[in-house]
Parts: sequence; C-alpha cells; structure tokens
Amino acid sequence: MKFSCSSTDFVNALSVATRALPTRTTVPALECVLIETDENDCLRVTCSDSQLTIVTHCPALVEEGGAALLPGKLIAEISRKLPEGSMSAHMAENGYMIFRCMGSRTQIAARPANLYPQVGQTSDQAVNDADLTMPQSLLKDMILTTSFAIATDEERPILTGCLLDVHGGEARMVALDGFRMAVRMQRVSEEASITAVIPGKALQEIARILSDDESAMITMHLQGGRMLTSIGDTEISAILKEGEFINYRQITPTTWATRAVLDSGELSKCVERASLIAREGKNNLVKLQIGDGKIIITSNSEIGDVYEELEADIEGEGLNIAFNVKYLSDALRVLDGRAIEMRFISGVNPCVIVPADGDDFLHLILPVRINA
Amino acid sequence: MKFSCSSTDFVNALSVATRALPTRTTVPALECVLIETDENDCLRVTCSDSQLTIVTHCPALVEEGGAALLPGKLIAEISRKLPEGSMSAHMAENGYMIFRCMGSRTQIAARPANLYPQVGQTSDQAVNDADLTMPQSLLKDMILTTSFAIATDEERPILTGCLLDVHGGEARMVALDGFRMAVRMQRVSEEASITAVIPGKALQEIARILSDDESAMITMHLQGGRMLTSIGDTEISAILKEGEFINYRQITPTTWATRAVLDSGELSKCVERASLIAREGKNNLVKLQIGDGKIIITSNSEIGDVYEELEADIEGEGLNIAFNVKYLSDALRVLDGRAIEMRFISGVNPCVIVPADGDDFLHLILPVRINA
Repeated sequence: MKFSCSSTDFVNALSVATRALPTRTTVPALECVLIETDENDCLRVTCSDSQLTIVTHCPALVEEGGAALLPGKLIAEISRKLPEGSMSAHMAENGYMIFRCMGSRTQIAARPANLYPQVGQTSDQAVNDADLTMPQSLLKDMILTTSFAIATDEERPILTGCLLDVHGGEARMVALDGFRMAVRMQRVSEEASITAVIPGKALQEIARILSDDESAMITMHLQGGRMLTSIGDTEISAILKEGEFINYRQITPTTWATRAVLDSGELSKCVERASLIAREGKNNLVKLQIGDGKIIITSNSEIGDVYEELEADIEGEGLNIAFNVKYLSDALRVLDGRAIEMRFISGVNPCVIVPADGDDFLHLILPVRINA
Repeated sequence: MKFSCSSTDFVNALSVATRALPTRTTVPALECVLIETDENDCLRVTCSDSQLTIVTHCPALVEEGGAALLPGKLIAEISRKLPEGSMSAHMAENGYMIFRCMGSRTQIAARPANLYPQVGQTSDQAVNDADLTMPQSLLKDMILTTSFAIATDEERPILTGCLLDVHGGEARMVALDGFRMAVRMQRVSEEASITAVIPGKALQEIARILSDDESAMITMHLQGGRMLTSIGDTEISAILKEGEFINYRQITPTTWATRAVLDSGELSKCVERASLIAREGKNNLVKLQIGDGKIIITSNSEIGDVYEELEADIEGEGLNIAFNVKYLSDALRVLDGRAIEMRFISGVNPCVIVPADGDDFLHLILPVRINA
C-alpha cells in the first residue's frame, strides 16, 4: 500500500470518519480506522461502532493498492498536527505504516485489514424499503429539536432512537424517554410511507455533518433494516432499532382545560434562574402557578427560593403544576424565543407545549405530583 | 441592610471577587462572599481562600447599612442570570437576603457577617517593605511566561510561588519545580530592592484581571509579609511564601559546549507531533539529536515512532539529549515563534533556552538520562 495526498484532505477525511469510533468496545479492531485504496485514485476511510458506520473518501495518488487498520484516535490527532502540504504514506514490511510530510516522518503500528468486521452491510430482506428526500437544513433542524428527548438509559432500547414517521405527505420525528416527548412535524412533497426508528447517536452525527444551506438536499434510504445516506463524499449507515415504538399519537392529549400563551424566551430566563435554586434541592423542581393573567414560577430548596412573575394570556381555570426543571428548560431552549402555547388539563396530567404560530413542534412533559 | 444597584455592576463585582473562593476549605464561611455596605454609596465585595483575598466594589444606593455572608458560587451564578436593570436587595428578619430585579425575586439564606474570618490583614512587622510599579501588560507577561513552571505538589511549599527578585534596576520573576525553571527579566526604572515569593494562585488571578493596555500601570506593595495591589476598584492581597527560594543564579549554567539557533515555532510543531507518540509510552520522552546543521527530533513507543528534521545553526560538538516532552513544549509555547538559542553542555546537563534576540527570558530544563 502506497499513496500520497494532501495532508489537509487526509485530516478532513479522518475527522469525519472517526466520529463513528465507539466510545467503548469489546472488538479492538473497531478502535481502528480502516484505510483502503480505491480504484478512483482515492482512499476509502471507514470507522464504525458496529451500529453506526461512516465511510468517507480522500483524493489521493495511489501507487500501490492495499488496506490497513490504524489506531483511530491517535492517527486523527497526529494528522491534525501535520504540516500543511503534500504527504506520502506506505506500508513497511515490518507492519508499520510510514507517513512522510515535509521534514516529518511518523511510523504507526498497523493491523491487518482483514481483522476489521463486516460493517455497514444491509441485510437481504427488503421489507419496508423507502426513500425520503428533504433539504439538509430541515433534517438538521428536525434532529436538533427532538434528539435531546431520547432516552439515555438502555432499559428500553427502542427509546434510544428517534421515530421517523412519514405518512400522507407529513414527516414526523419523535423522541421520548418516558418523562417527556418531543415531536417535530413537517410537510413533505413525497408520498413515501416510512416507520423507522433511527439510533440517536447516528442522528446526532448526521446533524453534525449536515449543511445549513437550504438548497442542499439529502436522501435517506431505508433498506434492509438500515438507514443509508450520503452527504458529499461521505456515506453513513445505521442499523435501525428493532421493535415497536410507543404510539405517540395515543399519548398526546387532544383537549385542554387551561391554556397560556406567552413568550418562550422570557419563560426560559425565569426557569433558568429557578433552576439554580432547584438544583440545590433534592428533586430539581420548578412550580408554575397559572392564573390571573400571569404565570408565577417558583422553586425552593434549603438555601433559598426564587419567585418570578410573567405576564401571559390565560384561558380557563387557574392551576398549579410542577415539573422537573430540566425537562421544561430543554423544551424552551428548542422553541428559541418563539411565542408558545402551553396546554394543561390539570396539575397531574401531561402539559403540551406548542408554538403559538405553527404546528411544527409539539412537546409533552409529565408533571411531578406535589403536595400543594 | 438594604441597597439597590445595577444588576450588571453586581454581576461584575461578584465575578471578580469570587475568583478568590477556595476550591476546598475546612472553614465554611470562606465558601461565602462577604457583602458589606460602604459609606461611599457602594458595596464592598470580599472573597478569600485565606491566602489570597480579593476585595472589589460595586456602586450602589445604600438605604440601610449592614453586612452579610452569601454562598459564593451560587450567588455569582444567580446574579449572572438576572435581567439587566436595576435590582434591590434587603435582609429579611428570617435571615434571608431578598433580591428583586424586574419581575424576579430571589431569597438566599445568609449567614451572619461576623462568622467571616479576618482576611487580608498585614502583620505589623514592617520588614523589607517596598513598592514596585510597572505597566499592567508587562506584569501580565511576566506572570504568564513563568507561572506554568511553578511546582504543583506541596512537597516544597516555597516552590508553589514565583520569586520576585528586584535589584539594581532589574526585575526578575522566577518559577521552578525541580525539573525546569522559567526566568523572565525586565529592566525597571525604580531603585526598589525586593526579594519576595508570591503564591502562584494569586499571580494567576492577578494576571486575569490585568489589562493589556501598556499605559495602565500597577503598583505592588510588599508590606508586612503580604503583597498588596489595586487594579481599578479591586484590591488584591496575598500572603507571601515564607522561606528561602532556591538560588536560581547558582543553578543557571554560564558556559556551553553546543549551541543551536532555530525557530521556536517550527520546533514546537515537531515536538507536538512527537508528544502524541511519546504520550503512548511510559516515560513521555522526546529525543533531540543535534549536529550537522540540523536537529533531529524523535520519539517512540509501542504504537509507533516520530522522526522530525529541522534545520538549525549549530556551533560546537554534536550531542544527543532527551527531555520530558511536556517541559520542552511548555517552554516553546511561551517563546511563541521567536528565534531561540538552545545551549547545551552535554546530554546529562541542563539545557538553557533563551530568545536569540534578547535576554528577557531564560528557560532551563533538566534532561532525562537515556541509554543511547
């Protein structure tokens, strides 16, 4: 194996691919990056944690074909420190890969490429295959406004993914962790019908690579139990979560008894202040008292308390409700200063938060029962 | 106690003072900030870790004099989240301090101010009192180019401070940890004669507050076993380290057998790359091979090795020497791309690094003995 390329291109390819390196693994080969020469005068650079696989390409002058496994984190770090310019690499007979760039020569112990497991393969059972195309910026927004609500524990593995639900010209991305739920809705021009649960880590990595440019499009292929997509030179593949996602439509209340319209930015600031005090207590609670044209936000702990008053348009009965402060502030962060409508049935039923001016987002938070 | 002030002024005062909060303490009152009303329509805001004390001031309308201890970190964080505008505060009868700012009301449990220990007092023995005045930007530079070499363990407490040595119109700041030494020299117009060891933490906090403006001056008063200084509204006092500092002049070699002149920026990049490989090994070593108009920089560990060649003007015998990579890269970072002169006696004697174009900085590094 022998090639030369620009050190900048090499750094960029490694930065993208190594995002798929596992944080922990029992398969040592997965800690490596797989570098293969390609026929089209380029390198294929692959990393995978077995669930998520990222393959990217780097233009190169290939003198001798081959493949090698190199320690992923280390080679990414070393490449970032290389001088900018032309670099060459070849595999030495002692099993070391030798990189030369200007006056610098680095040897790294390589492992045989055939130790790398099969990753990124789709299975043959072509059930439910479908494609979905949308602007990259839209997909990025859908991911960022929902993925924070993904479950972080593995107790119910299906909840560590986001549901992608496309039917009748509407695409929904849904994340929930048993305490709150985030739904992002968007009309799409396609007639595709999709029900797939995409792993959270894959979505977060995809969001990092996606462009904010509204004219750049992305197509997601749902195929053989995988989600496959390409962004520029990079191919991403993720194994879909198996199992049934929670019926999110069923748990979304359709009625309300009390409704408050207010500025999410103002509420967010009040909740942030309340959270500093709540955090000192045991249960991290923020209490909302809704009525009389205002919302009173309070929190208390041994060290002190916070009392905030915020004007709001209120309809219906007054009511008291308490939330885990984190769930409320996460939702408000996503709503980013928009006017919102908060819908309540009672102090013990889920609260629904939607933008006052659209139906693109719905957030549901379970309250905490308090003796008040 | 009752006052009103601008929330922005209050935040700024707390940000400055709380830098002196101890990271760990056995005196709970020191975890607090002491807020006192002053006669001149302002607040005195004090934090101390008993060694370092920072007192700053905040303009305020004082309606009722008084003093209170409030949890330092918490009140600093809460103040940062307050709306910008006028805020008022008063001490309630239940021992809570109540802050109001726009629609927000926060109560924080206060402790009696008389629990706060006496801090920042000078002792009566006026031995060796002296003043030193210099531009703030110069003091900042002297601190930043030496304090990284301060000892981090408490084995020899005197070495956790920097020596300030002013004699015959020359000011020197010296830090050493037993493995390396950093000396920063500067001619000063004053005739002061000072030998004082200032605690590293105090210097680092002073450096944060100092301005980069060359026309802003600072005066350090050495008095009663303390270093006292004011920067704007802020007074800083630090207890000087007791004991004899190492005679740094005696340990600085005055001769050399081999001398290399080269670009510190280039060497720094080579050493950074070498460090990535060295770090994987046991001893974190970088080896320098000096001779034939170049320096060859190498490092190796199980995972691979790095070989770098750098042109240099070399005088004297060739020689091989090895360093802890951290000590070498710390020194090069401070020299910030300047041309440097490295002076060697042999592979087992300390190496001296000075700028090629000045005598404002001297760095000494002990080599690591290797079998080569």
